[in-house]
Amino acid sequence: MVERRDRSVRNLEDALRDRLRQPGVVGFTGAPGTGKSTLVDGLVAHLRAEQTSVAVLATDPNSPFTGGAILGDRIRMQRHALDAGVFIRSMGARGHLGGLSLATRESIRLLGAFGFDEVIVETVGVGQSELEVASVADTTVVVLTPNLGDGIQMIKAGILEIADIFVVNKSDLDGHARVVTELRSMLNLAGPGASLRGGSGPSWKPPIVATVASRQEGVAEVWNAVLAHRRHLQESGLAGKLAAQRMKDETADVAAELARERARRALDEDPTLAGRLLDEGLPYRTAEEILRRGPIMGSER
Amino acid sequence: MVERRDRSVRNLEDALRDRLRQPGVVGFTGAPGTGKSTLVDGLVAHLRAEQTSVAVLATDPNSPFTGGAILGDRIRMQRHALDAGVFIRSMGARGHLGGLSLATRESIRLLGAFGFDEVIVETVGVGQSELEVASVADTTVVVLTPNLGDGIQMIKAGILEIADIFVVNKSDLDGHARVVTELRSMLNLAGPGASLRGGSGPSWKPPIVATVASRQEGVAEVWNAVLAHRRHLQESGLAGKLAAQRMKDETADVAAELARERARRALDEDPTLAGRLLDEGLPYRTAEEILRRGPIMGSER
Repeated sequence: MVERRDRSVRNLEDALRDRLRQPGVVGFTGAPGTGKSTLVDGLVAHLRAEQTSVAVLATDPNSPFTGGAILGDRIRMQRHALDAGVFIRSMGARGHLGGLSLATRESIRLLGAFGFDEVIVETVGVGQSELEVASVADTTVVVLTPNLGDGIQMIKAGILEIADIFVVNKSDLDGHARVVTELRSMLNLAGPGASLRGGSGPSWKPPIVATVASRQEGVAEVWNAVLAHRRHLQESGLAGKLAAQRMKDETADVAAELARERARRALDEDPTLAGRLLDEGLPYRTAEEILRRGPIMGSER
Repeated sequence: MVERRDRSVRNLEDALRDRLRQPGVVGFTGAPGTGKSTLVDGLVAHLRAEQTSVAVLATDPNSPFTGGAILGDRIRMQRHALDAGVFIRSMGARGHLGGLSLATRESIRLLGAFGFDEVIVETVGVGQSELEVASVADTTVVVLTPNLGDGIQMIKAGILEIADIFVVNKSDLDGHARVVTELRSMLNLAGPGASLRGGSGPSWKPPIVATVASRQEGVAEVWNAVLAHRRHLQESGLAGKLAAQRMKDETADVAAELARERARRALDEDPTLAGRLLDEGLPYRTAEEILRRGPIMGSER
């Protein structure tokens, strides 16, 4: 229902209002082929060994239409199919520009109400998807590998600003030490404010964790780094500020979606209004008029 | 003003209302390194030789923060710096999820009012940016090269559905014939409805044009294909339907933006409302209340 932007999401909100409980939210992003999914699967196993329930939302912005993530999804589902403490879902972008972020936020809230302790949001680091992850997660983990092509320059502008933790996966490959060194000098150059945009504040220095996820090496260390970052957010008082900001962002997203839908319906159901818009070509004036009119009867409750 | 989402865009709309005129809009998308920019520069030269004025909006969704497109921008500006019939602007996504599409739509409308005959929208084909291009352009051109890596499989799901024209650039490279053959068989497999989503209708079969943009080879043929597609839209009656759909989409985008801003301001300026939101955790209820209240005094005109 959340993914297809069903109006009844609003009723779910009411139905679950006494059970709302914020889970821990950790975001994982990185280029295709860095082994993000293997690392996340390793973390799921690690968390289950500790009796922690965990949901994984894998978003693939490269699959605007259908099915891009389905195969991987099935394989992963099988491994955890009998474990009620694990929920895994691949969410495609489905052509909803900007809609992935709202669907992710709502899913996180619902998964919290359903009792999940942790939610892992995993996305391919292309375009703006890593920004979306950073905007919904408490802690953002950026996954790299030693075979970065042209080296550290492959790290896109902006990645430093959202990473709370770096993982160099496949660290049994040649070039591992070089990537870590280059990364460390970039972080030193960027200075203490580097991760400010990620919400960690100036006193947090993103750790670099080496892993070989396919052999479960370093997975526990990644989770320890997440917990250390979470403590940092609590102790610095940033946790509350971030939670408040996210709730406001979600409300603004919902307001935008309600207004967009109201405009679509008004233009579909009122030929006079639509005709005037096409005649005059004044979208601002028309949008303002639609918002002034208020909800169409029966369309919002 | 449009890029920084200045409130005065609304006043611009009024000031220019008697000059509004829809330019031709052609979108170019493709992976990095396919030579899109060189091809677009070649088209600008071709159009200028015909006394057609042209604006280029280059959007780079990979540069959410700063400066990613600036160097290329400068180089291109130099070539056309003295020509008042050419306008070139690089627009970064600037972290505004979904906002690029609205800024592009508004820029197109303004460039039309300023008298530009043609607007070329150029974007790197990653994530959802090619969907944004297809949603604002009359004609969408997808640029490929013979060195596609693993061959035609590199073409992402969905690209068939938005392409009105395919260009195989760098067609002096090995593998050119193979890419064209594979592309043609994909198009035949997909059947006549392939380009439906792009708005061309079932009777349009996307042509495949070979170019060597760096030597201006095939550039005129690309433009002829654009004009043929434009005639097809006119003669099939789709042109009017697409224009109406785009104006409605833009109005819905504006309504969403107005509502989002209204929600942000309400939550910033009304501590009681914000406190209740954080207490109860009910974003739908809060968003609906904000929309019911109407605009905050002085914030919208």
